[in-house]
Amino acid sequence: MAEKGKDNDGKPAEQRNLVYGNYLQLEKILGAQARESEKHGRPAHDEHLFIVVHQAYELWFKQMIWELDSITGILETRDYREVRDNKMRLILSRGDRIKEILKVVVQQVSIVETIEPLDFVDFRQIINFFAYVLFTFRDWLFPASGFESLQFRLLENKLGIRKEDRVKEYRFTPVNADDAGKLSNSEKQKSLLQLVQTWLENTFDNEAGGSFWTCYEDRIKQRLSGIKDESKRRATKEMFDNILDEAKHDELLNKGKRKLSHRALKGALMITYKRDELKFQEAYKFLRMLVDIDELLYKWRWNHVMMVQRMLGDKPGTGGGGYKYLRSTVCDSDNYKVFLDLFNIATFLIPTDVIYPPNIDATYVKALSA
Amino acid sequence: MAEKGKDNDGKPAEQRNLVYGNYLQLEKILGAQARESEKHGRPAHDEHLFIVVHQAYELWFKQMIWELDSITGILETRDYREVRDNKMRLILSRGDRIKEILKVVVQQVSIVETIEPLDFVDFRQIINFFAYVLFTFRDWLFPASGFESLQFRLLENKLGIRKEDRVKEYRFTPVNADDAGKLSNSEKQKSLLQLVQTWLENTFDNEAGGSFWTCYEDRIKQRLSGIKDESKRRATKEMFDNILDEAKHDELLNKGKRKLSHRALKGALMITYKRDELKFQEAYKFLRMLVDIDELLYKWRWNHVMMVQRMLGDKPGTGGGGYKYLRSTVCDSDNYKVFLDLFNIATFLIPTDVIYPPNIDATYVKALSA
Amino acid sequence: MAEKGKDNDGKPAEQRNLVYGNYLQLEKILGAQARESEKHGRPAHDEHLFIVVHQAYELWFKQMIWELDSITGILETRDYREVRDNKMRLILSRGDRIKEILKVVVQQVSIVETIEPLDFVDFRQIINFFAYVLFTFRDWLFPASGFESLQFRLLENKLGIRKEDRVKEYRFTPVNADDAGKLSNSEKQKSLLQLVQTWLENTFDNEAGGSFWTCYEDRIKQRLSGIKDESKRRATKEMFDNILDEAKHDELLNKGKRKLSHRALKGALMITYKRDELKFQEAYKFLRMLVDIDELLYKWRWNHVMMVQRMLGDKPGTGGGGYKYLRSTVCDSDNYKVFLDLFNIATFLIPTDVIYPPNIDATYVKALSA
Amino acid sequence: MAEKGKDNDGKPAEQRNLVYGNYLQLEKILGAQARESEKHGRPAHDEHLFIVVHQAYELWFKQMIWELDSITGILETRDYREVRDNKMRLILSRGDRIKEILKVVVQQVSIVETIEPLDFVDFRQIINFFAYVLFTFRDWLFPASGFESLQFRLLENKLGIRKEDRVKEYRFTPVNADDAGKLSNSEKQKSLLQLVQTWLENTFDNEAGGSFWTCYEDRIKQRLSGIKDESKRRATKEMFDNILDEAKHDELLNKGKRKLSHRALKGALMITYKRDELKFQEAYKFLRMLVDIDELLYKWRWNHVMMVQRMLGDKPGTGGGGYKYLRSTVCDSDNYKVFLDLFNIATFLIPTDVIYPPNIDATYVKALSA
Repeated sequence: MAEKGKDNDGKPAEQRNLVYGNYLQLEKILGAQARESEKHGRPAHDEHLFIVVHQAYELWFKQMIWELDSITGILETRDYREVRDNKMRLILSRGDRIKEILKVVVQQVSIVETIEPLDFVDFRQIINFFAYVLFTFRDWLFPASGFESLQFRLLENKLGIRKEDRVKEYRFTPVNADDAGKLSNSEKQKSLLQLVQTWLENTFDNEAGGSFWTCYEDRIKQRLSGIKDESKRRATKEMFDNILDEAKHDELLNKGKRKLSHRALKGALMITYKRDELKFQEAYKFLRMLVDIDELLYKWRWNHVMMVQRMLGDKPGTGGGGYKYLRSTVCDSDNYKVFLDLFNIATFLIPTDVIYPPNIDATYVKALSA
Repeated sequence: MAEKGKDNDGKPAEQRNLVYGNYLQLEKILGAQARESEKHGRPAHDEHLFIVVHQAYELWFKQMIWELDSITGILETRDYREVRDNKMRLILSRGDRIKEILKVVVQQVSIVETIEPLDFVDFRQIINFFAYVLFTFRDWLFPASGFESLQFRLLENKLGIRKEDRVKEYRFTPVNADDAGKLSNSEKQKSLLQLVQTWLENTFDNEAGGSFWTCYEDRIKQRLSGIKDESKRRATKEMFDNILDEAKHDELLNKGKRKLSHRALKGALMITYKRDELKFQEAYKFLRMLVDIDELLYKWRWNHVMMVQRMLGDKPGTGGGGYKYLRSTVCDSDNYKVFLDLFNIATFLIPTDVIYPPNIDATYVKALSA
Repeated sequence: MAEKGKDNDGKPAEQRNLVYGNYLQLEKILGAQARESEKHGRPAHDEHLFIVVHQAYELWFKQMIWELDSITGILETRDYREVRDNKMRLILSRGDRIKEILKVVVQQVSIVETIEPLDFVDFRQIINFFAYVLFTFRDWLFPASGFESLQFRLLENKLGIRKEDRVKEYRFTPVNADDAGKLSNSEKQKSLLQLVQTWLENTFDNEAGGSFWTCYEDRIKQRLSGIKDESKRRATKEMFDNILDEAKHDELLNKGKRKLSHRALKGALMITYKRDELKFQEAYKFLRMLVDIDELLYKWRWNHVMMVQRMLGDKPGTGGGGYKYLRSTVCDSDNYKVFLDLFNIATFLIPTDVIYPPNIDATYVKALSA
Repeated sequence: MAEKGKDNDGKPAEQRNLVYGNYLQLEKILGAQARESEKHGRPAHDEHLFIVVHQAYELWFKQMIWELDSITGILETRDYREVRDNKMRLILSRGDRIKEILKVVVQQVSIVETIEPLDFVDFRQIINFFAYVLFTFRDWLFPASGFESLQFRLLENKLGIRKEDRVKEYRFTPVNADDAGKLSNSEKQKSLLQLVQTWLENTFDNEAGGSFWTCYEDRIKQRLSGIKDESKRRATKEMFDNILDEAKHDELLNKGKRKLSHRALKGALMITYKRDELKFQEAYKFLRMLVDIDELLYKWRWNHVMMVQRMLGDKPGTGGGGYKYLRSTVCDSDNYKVFLDLFNIATFLIPTDVIYPPNIDATYVKALSA
């Protein structure tokens, strides 16, 4: 029970609350909201939300980078077998955490959307004026945090988005040497994509990948021989050549239509088919988790595009590109899908048991050789 | 307390449960799941989910049509003033319900995504075979419920998507006379877009829209005259001509870049600026609600696109178009945004008080005339 | 296009990014994560998440207080009619924002739940040790942020939770004079509950509340006279006496079973029945919004309770009370429902048209007088 | 391209749409919504939603039972090692699906809440009258689907809720022999709880559980000996006796405070500590998934409780028990947590490395022996 002079657990108040407030450094967190509109004598209520929601985003970006760095750290320092046998649970645990954070980050866009266009126009104009010497109608691309935020750029780089994947028109320029250093490192460090590629290649090499591949190739040949319609067979063959033929794969790789090396993609296919073997159960889920992360990031980009359209409208000829840039990152291509090959892996899947299906209509078998 | 031989409220068991099970006609609802794969001797576990999730979608489509019909019913039978003064609460209540259903419908895609590509490949092949005479690699466009479902087509038509908005390659063909009748009616009936347009035009005509417009035009002219930079002024003028000049608006209307008549759009702008007048408070929220519905439908389309990509992959040359069709409905244009003009209304907004801002830095005023 | 030496909109990099990073004061926000476990040489990975998620909560508490203060500010300074006719849209807009934030806050609990019990045990022990002189098994009630956080306490007070509503065992003791001042003010200021009560009383007084009430009383009497079963009539009468009889209401008020004055509750009932009158449409939605906010806070408390149970378990005899305290705030009573009367308003609703139902089975009318 | 007379993939319209509509048996699904209020001449708009949302719930209950039966089927027919080494991925996949469905089911409550109390009162009264001979004020406990729905009862039983766990006042009485048969089977069949218990016992027996337990016991003894404060040591000892002492555990088991056998709980603890061993990685996640399912069901019950309160209010003396029953299932106890022991497992966790912590402050070690 609470004793006189103390509370809660019997500890002196100062000790308890001192820890909470100091531990979380709330004097910094809660002392960081200063409205520009207020500084210039025209306080806009909604600017407070604008500031806070971006600060919340930055906290979550930092947390996701923290988790991602721990995953790449493991992949970089442990060999493929140790990862597979002892580290997958931890990697998946950290990755699931990134997913949960992304779900909240996606949901957060609904909070930004409570800023109504007319209110946004009012305070944006104030900011615009005081931030720049010239007073114009240019959009101040505040909502385009995708290319204002250093941390978001670091997150993208650490996942595996490369210079050649990016929409070219907007270079992100760091503001000081410290930021420039971080940005440069994130481009030089091994990304998650690269480390996953290495791990998949090692898995393929070490887990009888060759015999799996031979079997896979044979089954495709059999299916093709069962297709009588000439044009359909050609089309199907062409599609599978894109995975069977390493040269064709590398061609697509150079165009940015594939992201993993051929050997790594073969490793991913092998793990997919052998997903119920004890040693591959977690690895299989790791591959699916990478796609989940890509998908959640795309959902966030998409929600962001629509929110920007609602807030800024569709102004032709501004030259500013928040909306145009953001929309192109989701619509023009799949360039921003880091694990595109895993996203598309269904393209290369054939049913697990096709050649001699058991317990089946005779007509089914007959059709196979039709 | 429960009496002997009875339960719950003291009513005979038959009376109570009879009502529940019969009332919900559960013998129909729960007796409608028959797997094709099972009929043909190769039962696939995941097919049950596939069936149930589409049935759940169809229940929600029916419910959304039910609510939408009640909204259009009110707009069609009541004059503009009665709608504004006595029916808006009800209309907004029904619309908010559509929003809540759409949020669940968006969330439901996560359930479909628990079907893993390899499992989907297995049962899809079975379905493909038994559904068609020829056995091929063609996608059976099941996940593309966007153009298999009559109800979804009805919903789109009743909202206001028109033939000319649609991606041309895939016509939806009803399967029987009854469905053909419903489809035809949904194309002939007044859509929500058309009824909203009429209501906005009436509002503009009856609520001193003319004097609002004169004021709006004047303020834009003043802002333009305050822009010294020649090219910037031209660009800004061009942008606002697209709203001030009815001929330019109609040009965009014919190209499908605008959806409302000029008069209706002016009505929407007036309501936006006068959102705090008692008679316009709910009307303003009605306009925002229409954008929310559009946005939620787009989120669902987007989630659907990504789910289809994950499940089917990216097969070039199939001719089948589920993924291609779905992606084009969200990425190629804003054609599927029914209330596009309201979505973009921020394009036409200028700050509420600009000409003589009170309590402001002298430099700000000076810049206005720079 | 991006010019040499510049980027994005042609502005020098420093000006652009300087604004973003400085504007959001990221050096504070991102410089506030220091793990205790690391300071003492035993860095625990999950402690970073622990810190960040609480900081995110505190940002959102601050934002909700910001919005809430603006709502109470309007209610306090404007008369009832101005609020009803010109300020409701704004009040509802701010309240909807609080709802959207609460939905994200509820969702955030899923992120905390990615900290697995075994990992939490490890770093909590480290914190426990270094925070306190004595090393014991006592829970350090970190997850019980409901009574560590000053801001959450302010939020509760500003909504309208009063000392007598609170579970008594845990007093929140502010750590310094500044916090003590804020806490004291939040207890002295008019809460949202009090201001809503005043506004509802004024509405009742000014909008012919008396004749509404006479009508309501009459209809209840008629219904009662139509109930032949003696005990049922007595039970029903007793239930309605609790709303018709002011003395009975005040009795419940004193026990904490009611929160609003009798006159205010009558005002709420009147607005509910007259929800389609132009002047009451937004007011009706305001009342429902207050219940939504209460409900979302309860969902957050509930999710929090379960998360604490999962992380700490159910340790009898610790004396510490995070789990026990949190659970009692949701389970023992409805004390923490600020707008309890609005939550329960269905208790007092009778159908809108009962006495002479049109177009109905004769048996129905007959039963009314049975 | 679409050929004349055909569409989409070139298949005749009938073949394509015939499959969709017939495959999903939409004539049943969409032909099952008949409003009682309409049958009796007083059509209530919201009754349609009421019907549809319950039908959607029933579809999802059926789907969850489908997945659950497949999980128990595997656990029942395969030995512990095969489950652990080859079936865990599949079990987890099915369980994750149940989780995703539960998240949508929890979200669906928001749709029901769009029915406003006053509208619910109106149509409920109509239903009440026509469903029963006597016209009274009794609640028709429709929203209390928790005890109207056979399938929900089956789901609870199949998870592992037992007669003795249930709140006693409301017996569910099946309406016909078929339902009675299903209910009876669900009570006789091995539940998930029982099968998990067997599997955990087998794991403990076969995976050197004994030596793990000896180690665990020793570490606890050491910790206890390090606590100098007499009363704290006694309290801590008492807490751990509840897990170390089988007799004490069984005592709690008989009172319903524990759900698993002692041996099974020991197995769960072992798996938790050995979560990074290849053979236990998926098993560990299986245990956490069971808690996730319990937690989601509790969230649904809680949202349901609050929704019923909002819709029906708090009517003293009705005798009807929807609200009272539902609230008791979540608040009075943890009886409805099937995997309560796993929920509470943090109670029994001690840090992984405590006795000789490496790289640590000398003061920390010293305190251990203080």
